[in-house]
Amino acid sequence: MDVPQSWRRAAERRPLARFVDANLRGASQVFLQNNPLTGLIILVAVFWGAIAARIPQAAVGAVVGLVVGNVTAVLLKVPDEPIREGLFGFNPLLTGLAVPIFLRPNPIMWVYVVIGAAATTVVTLAVSNVLKTWEVPPLTFPFVLTTWLLLLGAYQFARIGNGRLGQPALPHGVDPRAAQVHMTGAFLTPSMLKDVSEVFLLGNVVTGVLILVALAVNSLWAAGFAAAGAVVSTVLAVWFGASGSAIAAGLYGFSAVLTAVALGSVFYRPSWPIALYALLGVAFTVVIHAALSTALAPVGVPALTAPFVFATWLFLLPKRDLVPTSHHELPEHDVLRAR
Amino acid sequence: MDVPQSWRRAAERRPLARFVDANLRGASQVFLQNNPLTGLIILVAVFWGAIAARIPQAAVGAVVGLVVGNVTAVLLKVPDEPIREGLFGFNPLLTGLAVPIFLRPNPIMWVYVVIGAAATTVVTLAVSNVLKTWEVPPLTFPFVLTTWLLLLGAYQFARIGNGRLGQPALPHGVDPRAAQVHMTGAFLTPSMLKDVSEVFLLGNVVTGVLILVALAVNSLWAAGFAAAGAVVSTVLAVWFGASGSAIAAGLYGFSAVLTAVALGSVFYRPSWPIALYALLGVAFTVVIHAALSTALAPVGVPALTAPFVFATWLFLLPKRDLVPTSHHELPEHDVLRAR
Amino acid sequence: MDVPQSWRRAAERRPLARFVDANLRGASQVFLQNNPLTGLIILVAVFWGAIAARIPQAAVGAVVGLVVGNVTAVLLKVPDEPIREGLFGFNPLLTGLAVPIFLRPNPIMWVYVVIGAAATTVVTLAVSNVLKTWEVPPLTFPFVLTTWLLLLGAYQFARIGNGRLGQPALPHGVDPRAAQVHMTGAFLTPSMLKDVSEVFLLGNVVTGVLILVALAVNSLWAAGFAAAGAVVSTVLAVWFGASGSAIAAGLYGFSAVLTAVALGSVFYRPSWPIALYALLGVAFTVVIHAALSTALAPVGVPALTAPFVFATWLFLLPKRDLVPTSHHELPEHDVLRAR
Repeated sequence: MDVPQSWRRAAERRPLARFVDANLRGASQVFLQNNPLTGLIILVAVFWGAIAARIPQAAVGAVVGLVVGNVTAVLLKVPDEPIREGLFGFNPLLTGLAVPIFLRPNPIMWVYVVIGAAATTVVTLAVSNVLKTWEVPPLTFPFVLTTWLLLLGAYQFARIGNGRLGQPALPHGVDPRAAQVHMTGAFLTPSMLKDVSEVFLLGNVVTGVLILVALAVNSLWAAGFAAAGAVVSTVLAVWFGASGSAIAAGLYGFSAVLTAVALGSVFYRPSWPIALYALLGVAFTVVIHAALSTALAPVGVPALTAPFVFATWLFLLPKRDLVPTSHHELPEHDVLRAR
Repeated sequence: MDVPQSWRRAAERRPLARFVDANLRGASQVFLQNNPLTGLIILVAVFWGAIAARIPQAAVGAVVGLVVGNVTAVLLKVPDEPIREGLFGFNPLLTGLAVPIFLRPNPIMWVYVVIGAAATTVVTLAVSNVLKTWEVPPLTFPFVLTTWLLLLGAYQFARIGNGRLGQPALPHGVDPRAAQVHMTGAFLTPSMLKDVSEVFLLGNVVTGVLILVALAVNSLWAAGFAAAGAVVSTVLAVWFGASGSAIAAGLYGFSAVLTAVALGSVFYRPSWPIALYALLGVAFTVVIHAALSTALAPVGVPALTAPFVFATWLFLLPKRDLVPTSHHELPEHDVLRAR
Repeated sequence: MDVPQSWRRAAERRPLARFVDANLRGASQVFLQNNPLTGLIILVAVFWGAIAARIPQAAVGAVVGLVVGNVTAVLLKVPDEPIREGLFGFNPLLTGLAVPIFLRPNPIMWVYVVIGAAATTVVTLAVSNVLKTWEVPPLTFPFVLTTWLLLLGAYQFARIGNGRLGQPALPHGVDPRAAQVHMTGAFLTPSMLKDVSEVFLLGNVVTGVLILVALAVNSLWAAGFAAAGAVVSTVLAVWFGASGSAIAAGLYGFSAVLTAVALGSVFYRPSWPIALYALLGVAFTVVIHAALSTALAPVGVPALTAPFVFATWLFLLPKRDLVPTSHHELPEHDVLRAR
């Protein structure tokens, strides 16, 4: 579905509309889409999920992060085009969303969110310049890196403090009884919808449905691969014997959903061989999510979307002459005048 | 020793012989050699060691990994030449060997081995493309990375499950009594031979001898540096006071053996200055092995050959214009058609 | 202040004076300065601090590291110019300083120091060649990487052994009472001077004052930004509620001091926008220091100057066309003859 012509024209002419447009596109770029309507529906979905979970501060944080991130990009004199395509919005949006979910909400936490969102924009520029060497995009890595640092750091700050971070602990095997789940529609359907909503760290079926609608508005392929990623990762996690409660919460699927969209519909042209390749990528994403759950257990931070980032990088890099879709190419720029 | 002319001709003409030849060369590439006879003797050594240790599934896994890895490379349309040189065989071989050694053997584990071996080929392509920037080869890093992810992931999967992985634990100093060993031939000789066999995760003196023979068949320098690496690393580990049982099991030497072969005889031309440089590299490999043993203790996975990889990269990178021997150069390729 | 003409001439003509000059400049390069007088005062400051703390072996180790590192660079046929600018001295100096501080002093530890210092030079070359791709300097990363490996490794060596390394432990939150400090000059002034001296792992106010003097001798901007970095990081750490004893010991500031000098006065030309950018960089350095304190707790090694390195890289990389000041550019070189 195309953006209404009237909105396009407004975004072209009026600075405020242009800024709003950039922020909406930023919300859609979490799923590698470039469409303000998709972004609008996603923001509605995030507000719905956050309010239902009684963490409205998460949705507020997402908007704060989005705006701070984009303003930082403007102050750093990043060229106009990538900002308008939302490429400087999605990572700070996620940082602003994650911090209030995991840390105790108080005034200093909001300082932390603002520093974090501004830093995410700097990290986006840094990571983009490094990855340009191999023509792969930063994906959500700037969010992952910055948020890991913010959450790890919070353990050392008494006035910020842990909210919902798990207790650091040595990893141990999963109890086989905890892995027993019933492969029924009543178990699988909500799990899979939460796979989609957990991309925004929210376990909510309505949010999941809304996000699939938002994707379909821009690309049926994207919505289809998102759904397929949820199905494959959930089935695989059940088959391997992952914790049933983690599967039910959508934790085994959110990175896989993103990998499926990225490999199946964004960076490669959809086809049968590509679908098979994406299938292997999704399976490997499930393994990486489990691996990071083990590796990060002693330091008490979650995997976030790192499994998506690492798997997608590994499955994009073999393609030397990969042409990323235009909306993920960052132009060269001069952020600061050098000596 | 050269490969018989008749085999060369068969490998040139018959597809099956060519595939077998590529797989045998793949086995020899673990030690950075390109010789089907070396590979054949190595495979015999691996079967001997695995059967003696009552883990025949390890040897079977090695062959499964080797074949799956090469088939994946063919399906991904990797150019013919590096496949024929065995460059897409050695990493999946090691993945297929390691998984059945550390995880409980059952049907789902074999699914895990196949996914892992296929993923190892993708990771090999990805890592090669990244490292091409600095003209250093991936060595066994694709195996190390993939196998770390598979083993870390297994902690979260009740139906795969830990076999022989150590319990995750906080690191602690070595008891001085545990470090007291007798520097006698009766202690040192089997330790050093196991240094060689532990490259394939097997502690077996016959396997060690056979591998040295296999190396000598292709390059006396390689065999000599392998032996020297075993001697130096064992003496250093004893001198520093490493755990006697770990030294006796060959754990302090297997990465050092590979570093010695790589730096002393493969990537630099053998000479006295290079031997000194390789000596420092071997000493640093021993330190890195100890460091990774500490760093990985809380997450319960072994160092594998990462100390060899990291030390060799660090000691190859100073050479900007390093010309890797031809059999470790990966040509540019187009794995998948891009948009 | 300029170096006396007579010394310049001596350093030009006499090999010994030239070597001494290179080593003094190496000491000044820890703070990204290139001035033998600055280096001399810094060495005096280090000896003062080490003797006051009754760890004279630390100062001796610093000199041993400096000399071994530079000699290794000469043996590896590194071009003359970067050696003379001190670029191969500062990392091994820090390695030689850190090892005797954290490990038990005994003869084998000194072998460890020598291997470590020589390896630091190899790592400096390796890291420089990798980072040249993005035109960012290695900073103190070769020291950080090598020293982490040496310290982690020491846990496995009974005859080297832990001296002052913290016990490996799972991270836990800071007790709010431990975070209560009085924002008075009597608390803040010594804390901030120790922020400066802790760059050399020593908590000593005289050492801090001497280092500020040493910086002022070469660049008032550098001294000013160092002081500003100490103020900002201390205030921020107190505000966030970091452990009062850690702040008092200068631990929250030493990386921030280096970040402030690097971003504010060395790699960018001092200006108001740059000062704001450096401010964000310093704030992020404080977060990274806290994050690494958490992440490294289970493996029992300190963050060293890694927060400075990571923050400075992230804040330099956005500047694609960054022109590093000449004394941090490494020329291309051929360390060893290749095949």
